[in-house]
Amino acid sequence: MNALNLPPDRKYQHMRKTPGNPIVITMGDAAGIGPEIIVKAMQAHPQALQGCFVAGDVGAMRRACALVAISSKQMQMPIAVIESPKQVAHVPPNCLAVLQVGEPLEFLPWGQVSKAAGAFAGQCVHWAADAALRGDVAAIVTAPLHKEAMAAAGPPYDQFPGHTELLQTRAASYLGKAVEDVPVRMMLANDELRTVLVSIHVSLRQAIEAITVKRVLETLAITNAALTPLLGRAPRMAVAGLNPHAGEGGLFGREEIDIIGPAIEAGRGLGYQVSGPWAPDTVFMRARIKPGVASEFDVVIAMYHDQGLIPVKYMGVEKGVNITLGLPLVRTSPDHGTAFDIAGTGRADSSSLWEALRMAHTLNGGWV
Amino acid sequence: MNALNLPPDRKYQHMRKTPGNPIVITMGDAAGIGPEIIVKAMQAHPQALQGCFVAGDVGAMRRACALVAISSKQMQMPIAVIESPKQVAHVPPNCLAVLQVGEPLEFLPWGQVSKAAGAFAGQCVHWAADAALRGDVAAIVTAPLHKEAMAAAGPPYDQFPGHTELLQTRAASYLGKAVEDVPVRMMLANDELRTVLVSIHVSLRQAIEAITVKRVLETLAITNAALTPLLGRAPRMAVAGLNPHAGEGGLFGREEIDIIGPAIEAGRGLGYQVSGPWAPDTVFMRARIKPGVASEFDVVIAMYHDQGLIPVKYMGVEKGVNITLGLPLVRTSPDHGTAFDIAGTGRADSSSLWEALRMAHTLNGGWV
Repeated sequence: MNALNLPPDRKYQHMRKTPGNPIVITMGDAAGIGPEIIVKAMQAHPQALQGCFVAGDVGAMRRACALVAISSKQMQMPIAVIESPKQVAHVPPNCLAVLQVGEPLEFLPWGQVSKAAGAFAGQCVHWAADAALRGDVAAIVTAPLHKEAMAAAGPPYDQFPGHTELLQTRAASYLGKAVEDVPVRMMLANDELRTVLVSIHVSLRQAIEAITVKRVLETLAITNAALTPLLGRAPRMAVAGLNPHAGEGGLFGREEIDIIGPAIEAGRGLGYQVSGPWAPDTVFMRARIKPGVASEFDVVIAMYHDQGLIPVKYMGVEKGVNITLGLPLVRTSPDHGTAFDIAGTGRADSSSLWEALRMAHTLNGGWV
Repeated sequence: MNALNLPPDRKYQHMRKTPGNPIVITMGDAAGIGPEIIVKAMQAHPQALQGCFVAGDVGAMRRACALVAISSKQMQMPIAVIESPKQVAHVPPNCLAVLQVGEPLEFLPWGQVSKAAGAFAGQCVHWAADAALRGDVAAIVTAPLHKEAMAAAGPPYDQFPGHTELLQTRAASYLGKAVEDVPVRMMLANDELRTVLVSIHVSLRQAIEAITVKRVLETLAITNAALTPLLGRAPRMAVAGLNPHAGEGGLFGREEIDIIGPAIEAGRGLGYQVSGPWAPDTVFMRARIKPGVASEFDVVIAMYHDQGLIPVKYMGVEKGVNITLGLPLVRTSPDHGTAFDIAGTGRADSSSLWEALRMAHTLNGGWV
């Protein structure tokens, strides 16, 4: 048994549930909308304050509280400075718990790329990852960071294009594995649809090349491992085809016959509840959870970024939540960026962050 | 001026509105669900009976009326045999007007590919196309035909993979043009979204190759010509990118920079209201018509089949209607096939045919 109490032959990581612990929200880039949307989400849903805290900078969070107070014409939300996740339980009602990560951050102008903000945002995620791996927090919700600021931050943060790679690296180190042995996938979800992507930020041509039996099967394995404990049973996984009508028997492309079909067969051989390849234009509709209608599938495996994201975002970009599968921790995030163009104006929409927080709670078996 | 009273330099065809005339519904393959869904749609919406008629076989339609009477436990709908579209106005209430096309069709078993049904279905579409081009009918709604039956039908119908090619050929002949000079595009629409596809039934790899400045610009021209008279103003066309985030400045693919962007520029040069290339995962959401929210665009130009069809079908496959743009006539169709597996069982769903009929009326400025 390793530090996570998992059998050593378990290749793909489960998310662990630790429902008694608080959820940590990492502040994100201090010059972006992260601090503001955290305060707004908490102001709109004060009941959530008892179960979560911010890993960030007390000064930056105070500035956000002042900004939201002015823009919403409400009283400024008080901040309770905590020194460990355990103290969240003792924070008074209607106060926002903030844990100062490292040294207090200097004052930074809104909407500008800065080395200091990039490094600080990286530090917060680093701290949260380790806290989650130790089991001190139930889940991580990450407010947006800025890629250019991370790049400007210098080592070690300039090597990470985003949250996922940083979390993956911390998890691999904790598990004593190489990073490539902790493969992850992005799941996008809202209240009615879950989709896991075989590839993400590459051109469509490269995405087609990335569809291999190994990658599709790995996606099935990660999805199965991540969703089984959450659903309390094996997930019914639907695999989308790549081509129109899933290739119509080879007439419109052969990837379904040569690659996707064999990967599904291999998955069945491993005992997964998996079906497909299904016509991409109707599989998402069939997986959609609607009132009074049983959905056919629990999750759709999408062959490329937009195949999965178009249906999730169609219902409203503010409802989409990003969940990283394959890590031994729960991590969700809003599906938008730092919005430097409106940072500091009080106009940022906190809906997606709130959905991410709600999803993190749900994944932990908490309130929906 | 040519026979259609259009200026000879008008390269892309408008749909003509002739709101006083009836709409013709072509029966489709007699062995499929076409006759049944026509009767069911009319039974559910008897007010529509006064404005439309079936071009088909009286015997096959009687059989469908009997089938629906049994399965719905309602009185069998009477058929009024008409000999010209003008007689629709004199059909008694609650009767289904049917115009016999050619010789009566022999009795055919349900759910089987047959040369006779294929040829007859082709004849009905041929008749309807000519009636629409003459201006005798306001629009054509096509019930599904079967590709294999059309192929078995022999000349001239075996050369047409589907309705669109047959209609295109009739229109070209009527206009005195070559078929390639009457380019068409498929528009998919429901009550909240319209999308026009640059390519349809080819592999995703081939669809990427089909994205050329010429094809994208032609799609803009056809869409602009078709929607301007329908909306009463120039449509606001949004062009989707091909790659994630529309390529993110060339980082995830260059088609947006090299092809799609220049086509949009050329379209603006022609006076079109066109914007993009937009991130594919959010452009459909932005074009979605929701109560109380102004949509940003009237139509989205999709780069490939599933990009456009996933969002349209996500709201329910039974709501999606297929509209052929580029023809000098209005043609809509349900977005499903002959469903040979359930033909004759009384279980077919007529919703999409009804939506197609409703859309044909709307396109003619009639009732919504």
